[in-house]
Amino acid sequence: MSDVVSLLSQIEDTGRDTRGPGYQRPGFSSTERDLREWFLAEAAHRGLDTEIDANGITWAWATPQGANAVVTGSHLDSVPGGGEFDGPLGVASALATFDVLKSSGALDQSTRPFALAVFPEEEGSRFGVACLGSRLLTGAIDADRALGLKDAAGDTFADVARGYGLDPNRIGRDQSRLAGIGSFIELHVEQGVGLINTDQAVAIGSSIIGHGRWHFAFSGQGNHAGTTPMSHRADPVVAASRVIGDIPTLAAATDASAVATVGRTLIHPGGTNVIASSMSFWLDIRHPDDAVVKQVLEAISRRAQDHGADSGVEVTISQESYSPTTHFTADLNSRLTSVLPDAPLLPSGAGHDAGILATHVPSAMLYVRNPTGVSHAPEEACEVDDQRAGVDALVKVLARELGIENALVDGNAAGPMTGGAQ
Amino acid sequence: MSDVVSLLSQIEDTGRDTRGPGYQRPGFSSTERDLREWFLAEAAHRGLDTEIDANGITWAWATPQGANAVVTGSHLDSVPGGGEFDGPLGVASALATFDVLKSSGALDQSTRPFALAVFPEEEGSRFGVACLGSRLLTGAIDADRALGLKDAAGDTFADVARGYGLDPNRIGRDQSRLAGIGSFIELHVEQGVGLINTDQAVAIGSSIIGHGRWHFAFSGQGNHAGTTPMSHRADPVVAASRVIGDIPTLAAATDASAVATVGRTLIHPGGTNVIASSMSFWLDIRHPDDAVVKQVLEAISRRAQDHGADSGVEVTISQESYSPTTHFTADLNSRLTSVLPDAPLLPSGAGHDAGILATHVPSAMLYVRNPTGVSHAPEEACEVDDQRAGVDALVKVLARELGIENALVDGNAAGPMTGGAQ
Repeated sequence: MSDVVSLLSQIEDTGRDTRGPGYQRPGFSSTERDLREWFLAEAAHRGLDTEIDANGITWAWATPQGANAVVTGSHLDSVPGGGEFDGPLGVASALATFDVLKSSGALDQSTRPFALAVFPEEEGSRFGVACLGSRLLTGAIDADRALGLKDAAGDTFADVARGYGLDPNRIGRDQSRLAGIGSFIELHVEQGVGLINTDQAVAIGSSIIGHGRWHFAFSGQGNHAGTTPMSHRADPVVAASRVIGDIPTLAAATDASAVATVGRTLIHPGGTNVIASSMSFWLDIRHPDDAVVKQVLEAISRRAQDHGADSGVEVTISQESYSPTTHFTADLNSRLTSVLPDAPLLPSGAGHDAGILATHVPSAMLYVRNPTGVSHAPEEACEVDDQRAGVDALVKVLARELGIENALVDGNAAGPMTGGAQ
Repeated sequence: MSDVVSLLSQIEDTGRDTRGPGYQRPGFSSTERDLREWFLAEAAHRGLDTEIDANGITWAWATPQGANAVVTGSHLDSVPGGGEFDGPLGVASALATFDVLKSSGALDQSTRPFALAVFPEEEGSRFGVACLGSRLLTGAIDADRALGLKDAAGDTFADVARGYGLDPNRIGRDQSRLAGIGSFIELHVEQGVGLINTDQAVAIGSSIIGHGRWHFAFSGQGNHAGTTPMSHRADPVVAASRVIGDIPTLAAATDASAVATVGRTLIHPGGTNVIASSMSFWLDIRHPDDAVVKQVLEAISRRAQDHGADSGVEVTISQESYSPTTHFTADLNSRLTSVLPDAPLLPSGAGHDAGILATHVPSAMLYVRNPTGVSHAPEEACEVDDQRAGVDALVKVLARELGIENALVDGNAAGPMTGGAQ
């Protein structure tokens, strides 16, 4: 039986970013595989029955598999330069929660199956599509489209998945597995400032706001930086940069709560003394109202065409992924509120596997306070007391779902409720 | 005896860019080494005495070494995605010119030593400093500073040079070698439109316009693209992009003939759903009047500080290299004009090793027509007739320098002047 804090410490050196602080844990990489091996070993150590399904999702069953299962888990991959908790906190909390339920003896009285799950490539940092594992499971992405996705090195997901031990012919929607999930609850570090000025360490997710990603490609004329007069240029870097510089103003003019971001670009060929021949950027837009996302995209797309035309640069825009605003399952959330009456309801600007699953099976989320409010960066944080409070909350929620609340209270008379008391 | 066209065809498959058209021939790479091996083999095949000096410059002596040598050559590295002729045309033309001078029997009557030379890392694509070999030879860059330069992989020039067979302790200014050069003539493909609308295939270089490179670093706060309101951001990509977008206007407002370019950027960490923590770009500015280069830099630097302050982003600017406008040696150029009376005099916006050498030893350049006017891109071109006309011109210039004009005319009575007649 391990505390959530000590579980996280076991992987704190895996996938550290060699270029600076934070982590590099790309989806389907050797690092994600190392983290999966850690999870499999921890699960095996607890006597759980583990399997990796056709889409690369790792399952650890605490009971025989069956219908109406209660499932909890998260992911182990990170964005480039990401923090320690985004993903792993939910996985470590799932293991720690199992320990509490098991050691109390309550779990033996559950009438529903219970499993822990780890989803691959949640961040979409490698193949561009966030929540790739849960999108494949649910059919939210077509398997053929997914298999053709390429990473920055030009490797297809089909090839990478094969190297990861998956069979490309079996990848895709898995209706029977999906139908077996009765409740999915994901615990995750909070990614904004929603809990900073409250006395609550844990919130319940209300919704995930609409989120799309688009690829903007600018194609001009490569040339010599010293010999080409400014007036003779068709410089894609100038056109694309003007668009990026205008994005905050265009987003704010559309709606004050819309967010639009460019965090990744690609210049070809990329020499200091070379006018580039092409530049791409990836645009991320989010807002609770799907119509606003569309308006922001249209405003930025118009501006891109205008700046492209001014510079003699051709602009091509394509959608990489789009998820409308998702509300978590009302029935399930009311049960969460009944056991966590003081937890506020928080919408999330961040996407999650629970958001993908929510349109197919009852799904919910718990967010654990992040004192910096920073996410997708090394400054992301979670105090140890809050990590333990998250486990306490997940224990209550899962006990309610498994119908073992009373058994847990009885069992707790004999020992501490979480390892946090050790 | 090989024609310049067939010599170039021998290396046309070496270092092709796997990402698209054009070439990838970085300085001190295995590709540059392959090209150097090709040159060494061609030189040995001709009975030339070859050596690689302390700074990685390759020399092939057609006569015993000695004072007041006549030297011709260029470079074999390329910018990322560069063309076929930028560098290799001058090296292949040097070999072809040797063949003409040798086969005519005229070379045996020379009273001056004669060598071919190949300079490494002319483009500065790898370590950021253009003409690194000639700068080291002349002391235009301090050896200690050069040894500490890092490439994109983080490897220092000291380590890379060691792997290339050089001794870091011997790298640096080589006064005795420099003093032995009596005339240096570099033939190079034209990098602009200067010869397109003329009936001349070859021009004589008048000057190389002033040229500097600066590194602009923007440091903000990495965060989550979905959960961070636009008003709470300190996004370095927005600030840096606004500067890049303003550069053409700022340059034009300073001087219509100034050129300022950003062709290379670096975003950290570089995730689609991540507000970056930092962004860098490299700025290249050129103008014949050094004061104008300074004014353009100041205007862009002020704008960078303004956009940085508006975005809560810190901006740091540092100079990577600077070369004032260089005029080629007047005496030598008047001799070139005497044998090429119809060749126009052209200034160059592009830097060259001959420009670095010109402040130390008599140096000159020949430019061969480029029908596209495009350079540092796959579209760079040079017609085969013009390649051969370049060799004819170089033969005349070198014969004049070596004092064998009359012998060459005699020898030519017995055979074709260049391999182009084959």
